[in-house]
Amino acid sequence: MSAPNRATLWGRVLVDELAKGGLEAVCIAPGSRSTPLTVAFAAHEAVDVYSHLDERSAAYFALGRARRTGEPTALVCTSGTAAANFHPAVMEADQARVPLLVLTADRPHELRDSGANQTVDQVKLYGDAVRWYSELPDPEADERKVRGLRTTAARALAETGGVDPGPVHLNCPFRKPLEPTEVPDAVPDSFAETPAGRGRDGAFVETESGTRSLADAQYADLVQALADADRPLIVAGPADPADLPALEAGHVVTVAERVGAPILADPLSNLRFGPHVNRESATGPVYGGYDAYIDLLPAPDVVVRFGASPTSKPLRNALRDSDARQFLVDPAGDWREATFTATDLLAAAPGSVFEGLCERLEVDTGSKTGSENEWLAAFADAERRHWSVRDAALEPNRLESEPFEGAVLADVFEGAPDPATVFVSNSMPIRDADRFGRPRDADLTVLSNRGASGIDGITSTALGAGSATDEPLVLVTGDLAFYHDSNGLLAVDRCGVDATIVLLDNDGGGIFHELPIEEFEPPFTDQFKTPHGLEFDALADCYDLAFERVAPADFASAYRRSLESAGTQVLAVEFDSEESHRRRDVLAERVRDELRGEDA
Amino acid sequence: MSAPNRATLWGRVLVDELAKGGLEAVCIAPGSRSTPLTVAFAAHEAVDVYSHLDERSAAYFALGRARRTGEPTALVCTSGTAAANFHPAVMEADQARVPLLVLTADRPHELRDSGANQTVDQVKLYGDAVRWYSELPDPEADERKVRGLRTTAARALAETGGVDPGPVHLNCPFRKPLEPTEVPDAVPDSFAETPAGRGRDGAFVETESGTRSLADAQYADLVQALADADRPLIVAGPADPADLPALEAGHVVTVAERVGAPILADPLSNLRFGPHVNRESATGPVYGGYDAYIDLLPAPDVVVRFGASPTSKPLRNALRDSDARQFLVDPAGDWREATFTATDLLAAAPGSVFEGLCERLEVDTGSKTGSENEWLAAFADAERRHWSVRDAALEPNRLESEPFEGAVLADVFEGAPDPATVFVSNSMPIRDADRFGRPRDADLTVLSNRGASGIDGITSTALGAGSATDEPLVLVTGDLAFYHDSNGLLAVDRCGVDATIVLLDNDGGGIFHELPIEEFEPPFTDQFKTPHGLEFDALADCYDLAFERVAPADFASAYRRSLESAGTQVLAVEFDSEESHRRRDVLAERVRDELRGEDA
Repeated sequence: MSAPNRATLWGRVLVDELAKGGLEAVCIAPGSRSTPLTVAFAAHEAVDVYSHLDERSAAYFALGRARRTGEPTALVCTSGTAAANFHPAVMEADQARVPLLVLTADRPHELRDSGANQTVDQVKLYGDAVRWYSELPDPEADERKVRGLRTTAARALAETGGVDPGPVHLNCPFRKPLEPTEVPDAVPDSFAETPAGRGRDGAFVETESGTRSLADAQYADLVQALADADRPLIVAGPADPADLPALEAGHVVTVAERVGAPILADPLSNLRFGPHVNRESATGPVYGGYDAYIDLLPAPDVVVRFGASPTSKPLRNALRDSDARQFLVDPAGDWREATFTATDLLAAAPGSVFEGLCERLEVDTGSKTGSENEWLAAFADAERRHWSVRDAALEPNRLESEPFEGAVLADVFEGAPDPATVFVSNSMPIRDADRFGRPRDADLTVLSNRGASGIDGITSTALGAGSATDEPLVLVTGDLAFYHDSNGLLAVDRCGVDATIVLLDNDGGGIFHELPIEEFEPPFTDQFKTPHGLEFDALADCYDLAFERVAPADFASAYRRSLESAGTQVLAVEFDSEESHRRRDVLAERVRDELRGEDA
Repeated sequence: MSAPNRATLWGRVLVDELAKGGLEAVCIAPGSRSTPLTVAFAAHEAVDVYSHLDERSAAYFALGRARRTGEPTALVCTSGTAAANFHPAVMEADQARVPLLVLTADRPHELRDSGANQTVDQVKLYGDAVRWYSELPDPEADERKVRGLRTTAARALAETGGVDPGPVHLNCPFRKPLEPTEVPDAVPDSFAETPAGRGRDGAFVETESGTRSLADAQYADLVQALADADRPLIVAGPADPADLPALEAGHVVTVAERVGAPILADPLSNLRFGPHVNRESATGPVYGGYDAYIDLLPAPDVVVRFGASPTSKPLRNALRDSDARQFLVDPAGDWREATFTATDLLAAAPGSVFEGLCERLEVDTGSKTGSENEWLAAFADAERRHWSVRDAALEPNRLESEPFEGAVLADVFEGAPDPATVFVSNSMPIRDADRFGRPRDADLTVLSNRGASGIDGITSTALGAGSATDEPLVLVTGDLAFYHDSNGLLAVDRCGVDATIVLLDNDGGGIFHELPIEEFEPPFTDQFKTPHGLEFDALADCYDLAFERVAPADFASAYRRSLESAGTQVLAVEFDSEESHRRRDVLAERVRDELRGEDA
């Protein structure tokens, strides 16, 4: 590996070290200042390069890939506003603990604040949203600096992971020539080689990152509380990417069975779907319909919660209003505690804590999980009623006269292939997924941008997730999110990712019908609901995608057809959002009436 | 003006004060947390509300409007990634001195870093890119706090202006109810009224911002240098928005005439076009073709430069390579000095400096501007040859066989109505505007995002500029920029702005043909030129815009037809970018051959 000039040397060493450290993919937006990085990545066989033309979409694509794999994805852009376009995805990566390595090219130091073209202040551009910020020194054929560069590369990659994964920002100044052009004082070949005599092959510095686990004494309170609990509850919030492989569902189920606790599994928890779910009885330990009924059941007395704040607001409120002892398990020791109800914070990996609990909790003798357990029976009953009401509403002839958006989410999960990756937009789709997505014995990886819960970058994040796997990819999005990231559709062709895109088109921000602002007209329609009348079939044409308008009652079959087809299809299902909200309330009320009737 | 609750009070007082301070327009993206601001703006008759669905486009639209008017435009978004989507435009506003008032709604303090939904760290989100950052206190019906709020509103608006205009960020936390819902402890009406007894009507605090001007003694060096100069040169770079009304072209022309200096007027300087330009002779004081010939002329001995760094790289290099005494006039006293050539910095408004020079420079007696002045004659000759070569290349039969992108830019300026606003994208369009846009006696306001020189947000910035005036609006953009801000097209309909959109479609990043990376294949095509094959006619359909493919030789007539038509038309002209670059070089070489021939 030789280097014709310093900038090229810098790019090659950096990329070489990142690849040795395990980096497998990079998203690159074209630009001149970033040429040394782009050229080096393009030439490296071990790193897949995804080229994007909009930096915002590029960053979300990288985010999606990293979220799906739990492994860092790199991002490259030129200097200037390009770097600011990464900011929304960096923010999401911060909140959602997604490992992202942002490499922004920059002008050399002497041009900063000089009025030079495309030169902005990129120092600490993302503020506190990154786990680590560093700036590369000016490229130079100097042994100590090159060792420093290799160390920085290894460290940057390591800092995206560990107990609190997230984004890392390396600002990379380069001076011309940026291209691999020979210069008179070419760099001696040796500088691009890994220094010899370090005792092994591989990365310049290898990092092994330990997991946080509790010592025996630290389990005592938790074990005692669970053993003594009359109404224990396990709440699995949206999973961090690092938890996806690390948390064994079997351990959670075992704990639940030993202490007689229902598991309320967020659709994003990685626990609502999988072989541990006993589909037949719908009274297994995993519950998914609680959003519709949790407030009508008795309050828990001990709660073990992990993952991010649950999607379900009724669940969050129920936790807030209970007097339970609440253990919050967080691998980073963060206080993800928006309702301020935790009584105990356990700074340890959920996977390790549940494994430890399995060893420490006594095997149940029947008293906890038997049919006489009223606590479990109440959940099982509510859950059964909820799905039965839902199933009735899904009957094709009912759907024809009483269509609602939640029916699509129900079908999406019922009909998803096993395995599949299902990406669900924020706003209403994730709420409907939460309420209508029934636990199922299938390997579904369900993802959303639930860190900052924006509706930006949805398409790109989904396609990025899809790029990391051969599984079928399903994206469920709304019309505003689909519009917001319309540029992201370019990745279908450019990055070769196919998807079934389910577009819930209610022509505007349907979620605002759920808020009190609905009563204030004006400005409700113009400033909140914001109908736009966009022709999404033309948008699909622009990106050469198959597009089909589907009636709500025909969705399930169209969805099946799309999943069986090659390529990417957009299935647009039109709804009246106001109607959908009413229907949502009606169905919830039906379950609640039944539950209240039981009480009376 | 009553307020049913605290959040509503806060929104109303803030908006009331901004309107009293002169704010005329706001761009709002829908969201829930920002409801108090949105409701107040929508209800205020004095502020025009532009609703956008993509925050990135919203911010660029606001930027465009503020750039065109020189007056602040406000921006409103909800909490979370929405605010990060403003970042690119905030960066551009910082660099280009555009007054922008960014109002980001935020969750209440106690929810920060709590894992609450859509809650991110918005404190100082844009770092040093804003002139002022402040956070509103928690809404409360407290007289002192309300006075503080009014003062903050007045100050925020004032801080967008002054000698160094730019973006200001107010972070605005709100707690529920966010809607104008009556609460038990409603706010007494008096709180929403301006406190009485302050001696006058109007804003709570009125700001008058002085201009920087030089004292007599501070002119001495400049006057002497100009009087003694043999080869004086005036360089007008891209104008700051505040300079648009403040700088009188007549003063610059008078100075030029008195000292015998050519004025090299950047297309963005506001001096290349206007009644001060003597079109007939093409030897008036205003020159526009220097990008093609400046390096072949004698070097200046005294330079007066103002505005941002010139678009023309040959001009920047010529300034760098000269030994001239160089005066840089900057209203903010910034060192916009990318070539590090200034010898004297004058921290004063260019308008004031040139007015002062008119008073202090003696009336020329003929020796300076007579036909025997070789310095002026050389410029006049080069300029005449450049336009004559260009005009020959514009002949329709020539264009048919030898099309090039610069011809479109030539036509755009020749055929622009008087008056008109012409917005030109970065990358090749602004470079071709610089070289082929001939000075003209017409009131053309030529704008670009030349602060950070990104190709993002181009369409939105142009439409925002168009929203501020009844003049015809022309946008010249490339295919990558058009794709990048495709979402911005929604403003044509939503914000009622019409434009003639000239789309130079060379299927990728043609500018990279100008760089050495062109020689390295791979990765040139895949990672730099990045052809995408997008179907822009379908994109136009999505936004219900007229779309026409135009051959290069037919462009001038299609352009005329569009300018005479109502509505918005996209005129797509396809080019081979490599061919365009070759043609560009050939034409320059022709001028240079002639000039060298003269020398020999």
